[in-house]
Amino acid sequence: MGMTMTQKILAKHAGVSAVEAGQLIEGKLDLVLGNDITTPVAITEFEKAGLTQVFDRDKIAIVLDHSTPCKDIKSAQLCAQARSFAQRFQITHFYDVGQMGVEHALLPEKGLVAPGEVVIGADSHTCTYGALGAFSTGVGSTDMAAGMATGLAWFKVPSAIKVTLHGSFRPYVSGKDLILHLIGMIGVDGALYRSLEFTGDGVAALSMDDRFTISNMAIEAGAKNGIFPVDDTTRAYLQGRVSREWEAFEADPDAVYEREIEIDLNTLQPTVALPHLPSNTRSVDEVAGTPIQQVVIGSCTNGRLEDMRKAAEVLKGRKVHDGVRCIVFPATQQIMLDAMAEGLIQIFIEAGCAVSTPTCGPCLGGHMGVLSDGERAISTTNRNFVGRMGPVSSEIILASPAVAAASAVAGCVANPQTL
Amino acid sequence: MGMTMTQKILAKHAGVSAVEAGQLIEGKLDLVLGNDITTPVAITEFEKAGLTQVFDRDKIAIVLDHSTPCKDIKSAQLCAQARSFAQRFQITHFYDVGQMGVEHALLPEKGLVAPGEVVIGADSHTCTYGALGAFSTGVGSTDMAAGMATGLAWFKVPSAIKVTLHGSFRPYVSGKDLILHLIGMIGVDGALYRSLEFTGDGVAALSMDDRFTISNMAIEAGAKNGIFPVDDTTRAYLQGRVSREWEAFEADPDAVYEREIEIDLNTLQPTVALPHLPSNTRSVDEVAGTPIQQVVIGSCTNGRLEDMRKAAEVLKGRKVHDGVRCIVFPATQQIMLDAMAEGLIQIFIEAGCAVSTPTCGPCLGGHMGVLSDGERAISTTNRNFVGRMGPVSSEIILASPAVAAASAVAGCVANPQTL
Repeated sequence: MGMTMTQKILAKHAGVSAVEAGQLIEGKLDLVLGNDITTPVAITEFEKAGLTQVFDRDKIAIVLDHSTPCKDIKSAQLCAQARSFAQRFQITHFYDVGQMGVEHALLPEKGLVAPGEVVIGADSHTCTYGALGAFSTGVGSTDMAAGMATGLAWFKVPSAIKVTLHGSFRPYVSGKDLILHLIGMIGVDGALYRSLEFTGDGVAALSMDDRFTISNMAIEAGAKNGIFPVDDTTRAYLQGRVSREWEAFEADPDAVYEREIEIDLNTLQPTVALPHLPSNTRSVDEVAGTPIQQVVIGSCTNGRLEDMRKAAEVLKGRKVHDGVRCIVFPATQQIMLDAMAEGLIQIFIEAGCAVSTPTCGPCLGGHMGVLSDGERAISTTNRNFVGRMGPVSSEIILASPAVAAASAVAGCVANPQTL
Repeated sequence: MGMTMTQKILAKHAGVSAVEAGQLIEGKLDLVLGNDITTPVAITEFEKAGLTQVFDRDKIAIVLDHSTPCKDIKSAQLCAQARSFAQRFQITHFYDVGQMGVEHALLPEKGLVAPGEVVIGADSHTCTYGALGAFSTGVGSTDMAAGMATGLAWFKVPSAIKVTLHGSFRPYVSGKDLILHLIGMIGVDGALYRSLEFTGDGVAALSMDDRFTISNMAIEAGAKNGIFPVDDTTRAYLQGRVSREWEAFEADPDAVYEREIEIDLNTLQPTVALPHLPSNTRSVDEVAGTPIQQVVIGSCTNGRLEDMRKAAEVLKGRKVHDGVRCIVFPATQQIMLDAMAEGLIQIFIEAGCAVSTPTCGPCLGGHMGVLSDGERAISTTNRNFVGRMGPVSSEIILASPAVAAASAVAGCVANPQTL
């Protein structure tokens, strides 16, 4: 019986020739990730278990991104705990304030993930690296602790949903619109514990940043991972970032899929997800005019250079609407530098946006843009659950950077195609 | 009997020909200021008193700078309250996220303060505008409420200390070193309720940004205000910012001073204030080598363009030391744009600094860089009281941007003159 991309990666890391859906395997880890919220919990578990060494100091990444620069004493204490652990074990890939970025944008940028690798991270959006043809998935802090100690993790081999893409996007439509459309189609548990495997001629039309966005939100359909085949776009991205050997895995022609979905990219419209679920999708035109008080552009979902370009294209020469705050978060220091060199940061500030140093910020209600009672934000982040960015009476509409920027200008949900 | 600069401004605003120290007067206000922490308190007082109108919507400034972009639900609710008040009374100078900056850098930049004017603000560093030859001072939120309603405030006319400056600074010495030196000399209550009136040939050698820093910290010696004469440097700054008529006041030749101090700028060294008082000053060489974990460059004291230039001059081509976080806060959006255009922001990021959108940030322990237990920061801010930037076990050393930047590179307190 043929295997999917994901299954082939897992088989290889379990040291077996074949695996099948539902099988429990122990796989070798190429990277174990934690952030400033989850790492301290993992460290506590690590110490409780009496562990005294890490499996490989080069294969652990700790990124202080969620509440940094620290928003309060408690978050500062958590960062101090992670910092001290990183120092004790001489963790190579420890990223502190000033060197860092949002973990899921930073790791690929630094070449810490390559195709065919297995990555676990104590953060649900660790699935982002599927964009590079890697198997990556979010785990709990206890799994992170065990992973740091042993370099191994147990996985139940997922079955898969095949998503075949055709054609290419129309203007102002992007990976965010595609993944919101897909989640709207299958629901937030539509891919529960399954792999979302993207394929088809439409893949070639997707930029690397589109793919990161799509894989990033696989978890919002409940997927274990969301993975792309390796192509020229992937190779171009890896060039200059990854020098170690890596292997591209392709699904067998007779791989078994639980479900197959076809999407014609040409038919997609700018799409938003209304409160309070990522699956509560509408075309932007259906809800245009809905008032907003805040716009958030950034995050591990949409804080990359291409996202900055798309937002800046809309905001250039325009002003953020009176009564609306627009906060832009380039996802890494390098993205900030590149965006500055291209004049994008200037465009944002001249339009009246606050441009933040890289941080997860308000995405999870952490800091740097928490909402007040009854306020509504349109945001390029990944979750719009009740109270995620503020009080339970606040609301989040998920959208692409182009839609978010157009809405910032209009002062209400707006379609960038017709702004 | 002759009057000081301050006394002449107060006499004019009280509509009398002369005042003397100790006299109680009611003065007309040219501007009433509040921020996102103090304005809500003032609004509550305003409403409790049954007030229904403001004296002049063009003469009130509300700046959301302390906890913005909002760090939590509580701060978001305070901002919402201020926003709603500003909208109700159509406050002309309301600065929200994205349009704003740190209040005491923003108001002069926007031309909201001119020489000879009287400004009260519900923020202790309102004394900053003395740099422009205005009388400005911090008040409580109740006074802010009364000021917004009546356009008047009661003042006890202060006596004065005359500080005569001679010469000019040596390299890497700035206004911050001067004011720290002065506070070290006279103590944190050395100018209690008095005016610090700066004069002498040394004034001409001070840039506008030096003067803002010096006036800003007058309160740290207990002063009611800290004021400079109006000269060509002042006029150049006002050019293009202030178009309304203003009046420069000079002290009478026979003005009475309680004390006279002479400072030769040539003799000043880079100076720091050790924990936990701004008066606990040392030359930087006396304490060089003291370990630090964080560096903060910014604030209403030292977040202006010249401060950015001085920090960048030291950081250019260098790296923030391992184990140290360096956070840079340009004080306004315009300063951010100017610093970007000059390549300063690039220098900071390439050196490994986090560059924040304008906010008061960690200065008052608010957010964006709160310390953990036992950590020590060197900071260009204005107060190093116990627990101001984090837990009571954390420490703050006050310094100039050049000293802070040199310390970021060295990983410990360092003299930029000998880095």
